[in-house]
Amino acid sequence: MRSAVILAVGREILRGRIQDTNSWTITRRLTGLGIPVVRITSCDDDLEAVVREFRRATGDGARLVITTGGLGPTDDDLTLAALAGATGRPLVLDPEARQMVAERYAAFHRTRAVDDPALTPAREKMARIPQGSRPLPNPVGAAPGVWLEIGESMYVALPGVPAEMAAILEASVLPALAPQAGGAVYLERRISTRARDESVVAPVLRQIMREAPEVFLKSHATHFGAEVRMEIFASTWTVDRSVGEALLDRAIGRIRDQLGEAAPTR
Amino acid sequence: MRSAVILAVGREILRGRIQDTNSWTITRRLTGLGIPVVRITSCDDDLEAVVREFRRATGDGARLVITTGGLGPTDDDLTLAALAGATGRPLVLDPEARQMVAERYAAFHRTRAVDDPALTPAREKMARIPQGSRPLPNPVGAAPGVWLEIGESMYVALPGVPAEMAAILEASVLPALAPQAGGAVYLERRISTRARDESVVAPVLRQIMREAPEVFLKSHATHFGAEVRMEIFASTWTVDRSVGEALLDRAIGRIRDQLGEAAPTR
Repeated sequence: MRSAVILAVGREILRGRIQDTNSWTITRRLTGLGIPVVRITSCDDDLEAVVREFRRATGDGARLVITTGGLGPTDDDLTLAALAGATGRPLVLDPEARQMVAERYAAFHRTRAVDDPALTPAREKMARIPQGSRPLPNPVGAAPGVWLEIGESMYVALPGVPAEMAAILEASVLPALAPQAGGAVYLERRISTRARDESVVAPVLRQIMREAPEVFLKSHATHFGAEVRMEIFASTWTVDRSVGEALLDRAIGRIRDQLGEAAPTR
Repeated sequence: MRSAVILAVGREILRGRIQDTNSWTITRRLTGLGIPVVRITSCDDDLEAVVREFRRATGDGARLVITTGGLGPTDDDLTLAALAGATGRPLVLDPEARQMVAERYAAFHRTRAVDDPALTPAREKMARIPQGSRPLPNPVGAAPGVWLEIGESMYVALPGVPAEMAAILEASVLPALAPQAGGAVYLERRISTRARDESVVAPVLRQIMREAPEVFLKSHATHFGAEVRMEIFASTWTVDRSVGEALLDRAIGRIRDQLGEAAPTR
C-alpha cells in the first residue's frame, strides 16, 4: 500500500496558538486503513516552504500527501498555490467548486452567519483549484477540499478547522481511499451513555483511542427536553470485518464500563 | 534570533498510538522566548530518516534543533546515533552521563521500581552521547537529555515521555537559551484553586494556554489530609518584564474566575 505524508500548514501551529490535532486524527484513520504514515510535518504559511514540503514528500517516496490548512479566502491561505507550484498544475476556477462555495455562502446567509451571500473575489478564490483536481464538498465550512491524482501520486488538501477537516475526511476521503487499501469496509456502532458532560467523556474516549488507534470515537450531546445524553459513535475502517467487529466490541465495552449505558429513552 | 526546528521521533506517533503533545509544549515555550519555530516534524524510528531530518533542519537554516524521543535503552532508540551520524561526532560513553544514569537506577531501586540497579549494557547505552555534547539531568526518568553546540548550530535531544521532556526543558534548556534570546527573564506565579479534579482543571488550562501561548500552566494536586487542592503554577519567559507580568496577571485572573481561589490553608 502507498505510504503517506501529512502536512499541516499554518503559522498558528508553529507559534503554539493552535495544537495540531488534525494530523493525529488523520494518522489514526490511515493506520486503520493499513496506510503507513511516514512523516507528519507542520510548516509555515509561506509559499516556498509549502512547495518544499510537497517536494520532500514526493522525494521520500510518499504516494499520498494529505494537507490541512491554508484553503481559506485570505492571502496567507496558499496551500493550493503551493500544490499548483509543486505539481505544475495551474490554478483554475472550477465550476463545481464555485457552485459548492456559492451554496455554502447562501446557507450561511440564511442563518445570518454572513450579511451578504455574494461570491466576492476572496470567496471565489476558494474555488480556484489545481487543473485536473476535483473539489470535495465541505458540509461544515466554506472551503471545499481538493483531490488531485497525478500518475501514482495522490494529493488531498483539507481545511484546517478540525470539524471541517474531519467531515470531509470521513465523507469523501476515506471512502475513496478504502478500495485501494485492500477492500477495507466501514463499520459503526452507537452507545447512549449516562455521562452528561463532554469534559468527562473526552478523556475516556481519548484513552480508548490511544489504546486502539484504528477506532474513531465521536461524542454527540443529545437533548431530551432538559435531559442530556452523551451518545458515542465508534467507527473503524478495516480490511478484516471480524477484526473490525472485535475492535468495536471492545471499545463499546470499555465505554460502557467507564461511562455507563443509558436506559432506552422515549 | 536563531530559528528552530522541532523533531519528534517515534513510530507510535505515526501510527496514532500517541499524540505528539511535546512539540506543542516546546513551541509555546520557544515562542515565549522569541525564538521562531519554522517547522515541526514527526518521523519514524529509522536511522536514515532521522539523519535526513537533522540535515533538512540545517538545510532550512535552523540554528536550533530540538528532538524528543529515541533516547531510551532499546535498539529502536536511535536519536543520538542519528545526531552522531548527521554531525560527524561519534558516540562516546560520557562519565557524567553514566553517573546520572547510575544515580537514577539507584533511586528507582530504592523505591522498588526496578529489581536491580546495575548498569546493564542497555542502560549504559543512554550515557553514550555524541562527542563534545553535555548531558542534561533527567529528574523524572533514566535517560539524560543531550546538549550539543557545533559552531552556530545547537542540538538538544530530550526524552519522549512528556513529564521527562518538560522537566529537562524547564530546568536545563530554557534557562540556557534565554540569555541568547535578548536577555529574557523567567517569571512565575502560583494560585491555589477550589478545583479538586484534574479533569476539570485540564480543559480550563488548555484554553487559557491557547489564548496566551507564552504562558505555561501546570497543575499540581496537593493533599491536606483528606482534602485535595489543585494548585496551578503559571510561568513565562519574557524579554519584557512588564509584558510578562501582565500576561501572568491575566492568566491567574482567568483561572480565579473559572476555578475559584481556595482560602489559605494551615
